[in-house]
Amino acid sequence: MKPKITLEYCPKCHWLLRSAWLAQELLTTFEAELGEVGLRPSEIAGSFKVLLNEEVIFDRKREGHFPEIKELKQLVRDLIAPEKSLGHSDRK
Amino acid sequence: MKPKITLEYCPKCHWLLRSAWLAQELLTTFEAELGEVGLRPSEIAGSFKVLLNEEVIFDRKREGHFPEIKELKQLVRDLIAPEKSLGHSDRK
Repeated sequence: MKPKITLEYCPKCHWLLRSAWLAQELLTTFEAELGEVGLRPSEIAGSFKVLLNEEVIFDRKREGHFPEIKELKQLVRDLIAPEKSLGHSDRK
Repeated sequence: MKPKITLEYCPKCHWLLRSAWLAQELLTTFEAELGEVGLRPSEIAGSFKVLLNEEVIFDRKREGHFPEIKELKQLVRDLIAPEKSLGHSDRK
């Protein structure tokens, strides 16, 4: 079974649009690797979390910021497809 | 546990964008009712399915067309929140 990413966002903060964008970026970059990306409204105000198979791999409150797209792709890549090159989104 | 919708799409047909749009429509309209909307690439060419808690509620191959947004919202509403008014997306 291919890995699943979940984007848990605060709907009252209007973070659906941001999350939907990130979901599309991930599904485009990891088209062959990802089984699903879920958009999940959170009950917690100000919450934004990224989960891999239901385990939190990024928490906005812990990190103090949203993930940059490059950072998010590297994080996901390192966990699900460490050999994959991300091209210009890769580490220099 | 709130219901989950899954949009299963054919990535080779480039139906991610359409699916991401539908996901945002559903999460906006059913903000309080839905627990999650998942975007799931399908292995089957030309496949587009809508699932509610993993049960197929719309299948493009069976219906012969994509769901119109109004049709999709009515379908989901009838199943998860039958009392809810959809305003101008509702049946006349």
